[in-house]
Amino acid sequence: QLKQLMADVAHEADVADLIEALDPEHRPIFIQLLGADFDFTALTELDENVRVQILEELPTETVVEGMRDLDSDDAVYILEDLDAEDRAEILDRLPVLDRAALLRSLDLPEESAGRRMQTDFIAVPAYWSVGQVIDYFRDAKDLPETFYEVFVIDPFYKLLGTLALDKLLRSKRQTRIEQILDSEVRRVAATEDQEEAARLFERYNLVSAPVVDENGRLVGVLTIDDIVDVIQEEAEEDIRALGGVGDEELSDRVPAIIRSRFPWLFFNMFTAFVAASVIGLFDGTIERMVALAVLMPIVASMGGNAGTQAMTVTVRALAAREISRRQAPRVLWREACVGLLNGGMLALMIGTVAGMWFSDLQLGAVIGVALIINMVVAGCFGVLIPLTLDRFKLDPAVASPVFLTTVTDVVGFFAFLGLAAWWFGIGF
Amino acid sequence: QLKQLMADVAHEADVADLIEALDPEHRPIFIQLLGADFDFTALTELDENVRVQILEELPTETVVEGMRDLDSDDAVYILEDLDAEDRAEILDRLPVLDRAALLRSLDLPEESAGRRMQTDFIAVPAYWSVGQVIDYFRDAKDLPETFYEVFVIDPFYKLLGTLALDKLLRSKRQTRIEQILDSEVRRVAATEDQEEAARLFERYNLVSAPVVDENGRLVGVLTIDDIVDVIQEEAEEDIRALGGVGDEELSDRVPAIIRSRFPWLFFNMFTAFVAASVIGLFDGTIERMVALAVLMPIVASMGGNAGTQAMTVTVRALAAREISRRQAPRVLWREACVGLLNGGMLALMIGTVAGMWFSDLQLGAVIGVALIINMVVAGCFGVLIPLTLDRFKLDPAVASPVFLTTVTDVVGFFAFLGLAAWWFGIGF
Ligand SMILES: [Mg+2]
Ligand SMILES: [Mg+2]
Ligand SMILES: [Mg+2]
Ligand SMILES: [Mg+2]
Ligand SMILES: [Mg+2]
Ligand SMILES: [Mg+2]
Ligand SMILES: [Mg+2]
Ligand SMILES: [Mg+2]
Ligand SMILES: [Mg+2]
Ligand SMILES: [Mg+2]
Ligand SMILES: [Mg+2]
Ligand SMILES: [Mg+2]
Ligand SMILES: [Mg+2]
Repeated sequence: QLKQLMADVAHEADVADLIEALDPEHRPIFIQLLGADFDFTALTELDENVRVQILEELPTETVVEGMRDLDSDDAVYILEDLDAEDRAEILDRLPVLDRAALLRSLDLPEESAGRRMQTDFIAVPAYWSVGQVIDYFRDAKDLPETFYEVFVIDPFYKLLGTLALDKLLRSKRQTRIEQILDSEVRRVAATEDQEEAARLFERYNLVSAPVVDENGRLVGVLTIDDIVDVIQEEAEEDIRALGGVGDEELSDRVPAIIRSRFPWLFFNMFTAFVAASVIGLFDGTIERMVALAVLMPIVASMGGNAGTQAMTVTVRALAAREISRRQAPRVLWREACVGLLNGGMLALMIGTVAGMWFSDLQLGAVIGVALIINMVVAGCFGVLIPLTLDRFKLDPAVASPVFLTTVTDVVGFFAFLGLAAWWFGIGF
Repeated sequence: QLKQLMADVAHEADVADLIEALDPEHRPIFIQLLGADFDFTALTELDENVRVQILEELPTETVVEGMRDLDSDDAVYILEDLDAEDRAEILDRLPVLDRAALLRSLDLPEESAGRRMQTDFIAVPAYWSVGQVIDYFRDAKDLPETFYEVFVIDPFYKLLGTLALDKLLRSKRQTRIEQILDSEVRRVAATEDQEEAARLFERYNLVSAPVVDENGRLVGVLTIDDIVDVIQEEAEEDIRALGGVGDEELSDRVPAIIRSRFPWLFFNMFTAFVAASVIGLFDGTIERMVALAVLMPIVASMGGNAGTQAMTVTVRALAAREISRRQAPRVLWREACVGLLNGGMLALMIGTVAGMWFSDLQLGAVIGVALIINMVVAGCFGVLIPLTLDRFKLDPAVASPVFLTTVTDVVGFFAFLGLAAWWFGIGF
């Protein structure tokens, strides 16, 4: 009845959920029980930790058997997480042709289009007729599991064009492929970043795209289902980076989580000490006017929030390639205006409340002015920091938050305490 | 030569870029110059502000003409941003059938699957043969521009199954559709949230999916290119919410940006005052030991960062439906451990530096203990806040950051200053 059950939850994503729900020690047993009925594609839908655990515990025999039936992209996806030794052991036992294709993909950089491509595709010569292509589909045994377009190539495997299946179906049998092929192909280089490939799919609403090597020869195909995963991964990466988290999974154990998070906290520690030392400059001032200590975090935190807003918008605009160097001055100017106006409104409210709280309207004025200064600076640096990081080819999502907090804390404390020291004449 | 140029940059996304590069006043002129050569689909690729500006300035005549040729989903996408009056004016002049379909989509809730569906699709009866379907494709004049599967329906438009084009092409002409259709259809209800539909596409690697009404009748089709936009939009929404930004575009003017950002800053102001009033409780303590004022932001800020890490992971797990109530205690326990360990390591470093800075090792011990407390609390609330918001059907990405900052600031200041007041005996 296990096999019956599997027929019911047939889809690989459902099978993966079922496996994740099992106790870790039962997972390999479950897969071995299913034997040939288990589709290894389900492994690609598993959480990385679960996948690695299963692959380590399954006999190499079973893994090799299962890998034989996989699409090349799924096989690469599974192999890339294994350590070199396990990977070599599996590859050694695969058929020569499969092994060569997998090794070619694995040789390409991580997160490149070539890592995500499927080396199984349909290519036909331009001189074939529609009828010949359809007959070929009806008779061929080794077609890919699903496909949405056919590639048209010359004898040297150079790509001449693509042909969507719906176009094929609308044409008469005797029509030649060269008459109906779409020669304006959006092709992807195997070494290109997967993120670039995803951008192409989004922009031109593609469902699949040919991958070519450095000589323009067709070597594989990218399909939208895998690109959807790339889009998810890339958005996820940015959200995590902005939140100060590395590449962790929900199933990770404590040591892995600490490895993912400690570096961020460590850098923030320096930021915190820099901010603290700015406050330290004014210890005499604070001693004589404790209200400053009470109010100073307000200035820093409002600036931090305003800066984060500007930074978030800029980081996203960079990720979507929506911002060019030409526009930077305009965006910067706009953020300065927003900082001034939001700062002005908040300064009125915060200044009034602070002034009444400590029965000192001058103190209210000082915090108001400091707030406006910090919010304008925060808006500008919220734009400048990501743009600068991007210019130096660093990932703006990863490093911007720490730099930004440093700026808004330092400027916030310095502006407020400095202004107060000067205004009330209680200096250093 | 303008028309020649348009033929060169033919794709709608490229045309849209070209329009955005023009001066605002030239955009409608450009479109009118192109006349029938301008594909209104390009409008869907424009930034919202640019689109609305163009639609307001173009004569209704031209807009109605352009809308005639649009896919229904693109027409809805354009219409939904217009005000009721302009929308009615355009709808009135469209052919009755188109109007009815558009009104049906527009009647559905915003961000529902029915808003994103295309009402143009191919449906065939189950008793047809493969040959009949292919002949129909060859002869029919009004097929959708692109399609990846055919729907199989009964006489009452109830969905019996789907048939991918590649499967159709692999089958002999005489095969009946009922023999090869895929009856395990992943269908989407028209009223379902677009985010749910996107999750279905991701999970089952779909390229298109049928949309059915409350009676199970086929009313439209969702295609992956539009779902990719939904996935992007939803990820974008979360990133912005976490960064404290509303629904703003890079082309927005200052007033629109302020409307998008001020509310977040306003709520953060209350947080900041709550934190300040906690400090206010200890003004006597600070007066006698200014080092506390210098060091206290370190405790609050490290806690804030650690909490943000836990919150980011939890918000993402909720968005991906990866976390269930069953797992919550385990995740909470894990975050507490991570807080304890990261907090412990940082406490050692920060405590040592602080102790040496103020030549007071006891002060170092106090800040260390306060830091550990705050980081454990931060980890726990980083999990609890999003989970609670989700439980009450509030968007965790939107509200979590403010609540979390409140907790980490209040606990950070209270733990550090309170502990110091008690330890050094310089109380309230
Ligand atoms: Mg696959
Ligand atoms: Mg991986
Ligand atoms: Mg698109
Ligand atoms: Mg694939
Ligand atoms: Mg896949
Ligand atoms: Mg990347
Ligand atoms: Mg990235
Ligand atoms: Mg819209
Ligand atoms: Mg998928
Ligand atoms: Mg569409
Ligand atoms: Mg579209
Ligand atoms: Mg939504
Ligand atoms: Mg959402």
